[in-house]
Amino acid sequence: MADGERPVIALLTAPDEGPPPGLEQLEDRAEVRHTTTREELTDAIADAQILLVTDFRTRFVRDAWPHARKLQWVHATSAGVDALIFPEMARSSIPLTNARGIFDRAIAETVLGMVLLFAKDMRTTLTLQERREWRHRETERIQGKRALVVGAGSIGRQIARLLDGAGLWVDGVASRPRSDDADFGTVYGTADLHEQLPRADYVIIAAPLTDATRGLFDRSAFQAMDPGARLINIGRGPIVVTEELVAALHDGTIAGAALDVFEEEPLPPAHPLWDMPNVFLSHHMAGDFIGWREALIHQFIDNFERWSSGSSLRNVVDKQRGYVPPENPA
Amino acid sequence: MADGERPVIALLTAPDEGPPPGLEQLEDRAEVRHTTTREELTDAIADAQILLVTDFRTRFVRDAWPHARKLQWVHATSAGVDALIFPEMARSSIPLTNARGIFDRAIAETVLGMVLLFAKDMRTTLTLQERREWRHRETERIQGKRALVVGAGSIGRQIARLLDGAGLWVDGVASRPRSDDADFGTVYGTADLHEQLPRADYVIIAAPLTDATRGLFDRSAFQAMDPGARLINIGRGPIVVTEELVAALHDGTIAGAALDVFEEEPLPPAHPLWDMPNVFLSHHMAGDFIGWREALIHQFIDNFERWSSGSSLRNVVDKQRGYVPPENPA
Repeated sequence: MADGERPVIALLTAPDEGPPPGLEQLEDRAEVRHTTTREELTDAIADAQILLVTDFRTRFVRDAWPHARKLQWVHATSAGVDALIFPEMARSSIPLTNARGIFDRAIAETVLGMVLLFAKDMRTTLTLQERREWRHRETERIQGKRALVVGAGSIGRQIARLLDGAGLWVDGVASRPRSDDADFGTVYGTADLHEQLPRADYVIIAAPLTDATRGLFDRSAFQAMDPGARLINIGRGPIVVTEELVAALHDGTIAGAALDVFEEEPLPPAHPLWDMPNVFLSHHMAGDFIGWREALIHQFIDNFERWSSGSSLRNVVDKQRGYVPPENPA
Repeated sequence: MADGERPVIALLTAPDEGPPPGLEQLEDRAEVRHTTTREELTDAIADAQILLVTDFRTRFVRDAWPHARKLQWVHATSAGVDALIFPEMARSSIPLTNARGIFDRAIAETVLGMVLLFAKDMRTTLTLQERREWRHRETERIQGKRALVVGAGSIGRQIARLLDGAGLWVDGVASRPRSDDADFGTVYGTADLHEQLPRADYVIIAAPLTDATRGLFDRSAFQAMDPGARLINIGRGPIVVTEELVAALHDGTIAGAALDVFEEEPLPPAHPLWDMPNVFLSHHMAGDFIGWREALIHQFIDNFERWSSGSSLRNVVDKQRGYVPPENPA
């Protein structure tokens, strides 16, 4: 790139999406090429120094990758970057950054809402309201209940803080076990997951999708859980073996599930999860608070300015581990 | 009562209710006469030293009152005691105690659940689930939102603690204004209610029903609230002028309401509140956690032992103010 020339940002969004709000602030400092198809991305990536991806489900980046000749940096406006860590990308020295931090608090609030929806039996209350039927019931307290948060990254940590503040006992499961964590009671190693599952009233998946987490919640995990326990997944769909979850919910192996992510998204209309009375389904939106798009671009521009001035980028993903490790500047 | 004789406890419950679980522990120490009608109570109260009332809506106590000749103590297994403070009772020197403390935490959890139900738009999510319809939406954060808790007694205080822990800013309204309260930002006087209402995203009624609070939430209060604000009532129904609330919800003066208590309970099937899309209705159960009946009797037995040994009772209601003031032993 010649001195004074504006760098090219190849922007890939979903087909129905415009450029994210706030990106126009870079007008004078970068040339943004908005693409929504494989062909458009292949063209744009050839000239781009920066690739900005807002569609976290895309496979187009892998297809266009061989055409990237000038690329210096890839940024994803999502916390999960599993779709972007294909082998060619993982081998390259081009840094990948993500939206670590933006969604944490909103996701934690959603998880707390899901816990209270179960404990206070609010779904039954809404059903009775439709029938205009008054029926006094006793409901559960959340104080003193046990939560096990699988994934102790920035999202899992916020969940732990919020649930702890609401009176639950919160332990974690992560690749690095530790007993001195400020936000968790104890963080157990992944190998101890099945040993810890029986103790939890709420099991919360807040892990990235990696080789270590894919299919982690299968029949044997559900069988290890307490029959009164609920599973909450705000991480990634494929961490759960969906058919085995449906079976476990159907036969009472576990008591309920609140799911924001799925193996296939959108969840197909014919899927059995939709009408299970002990399942609460939301639409991959747990972290998407009003203003999230602006916040994501604010974060990208902050990193753009670091890149422009030659400073080190924030939120650099460890491509082997699949997430931003705590030691990376954030 | 002759030495060694067992005192008589007149127990008044709702017609469909048995004696509360745990009361059989007093078998050797007291004679419990279970009554469910005006006539039964009138008979039993004539011999009773203690009156134990589990039906907080009753008018039978007032009717039977002239027959009480030996009565030394009245205990209500509810937090609200408005139905028991009739003029003859208020004038008498017989102490009235209540269930202060038992319901606090469970009610606070319910309020937090109601706040999250609104913020995360979970009702729409459930409606979409019924239709098997995937629709991504943006929802509100609760962090940084403002709550105004009307009533700074033990229930209001627990609500403040839990909402504060979840990241909201919480002020209070009470008869005694103060700025040094450990659980509230500022506690304003009741005279300042209308001045504070516009600042709140969530207005939570946690006050007892007294002359000062009856009808406090009328048209003018709703007009003072922010159009995006929600009203939560877990106190007593008649603190709200229901028709004026229905109008305010209907014309958008306020955004929503979550109600656990009503002027008439059970809420009649034909009432317009049932099918308002911005209303969440529960059935006077906000504090009724699994195990609450046992906890209530445990508390009564504790006071019974104090009464038997001549110690001062806990949770003595100030009959002029209509609640247990903080200075009473609790």
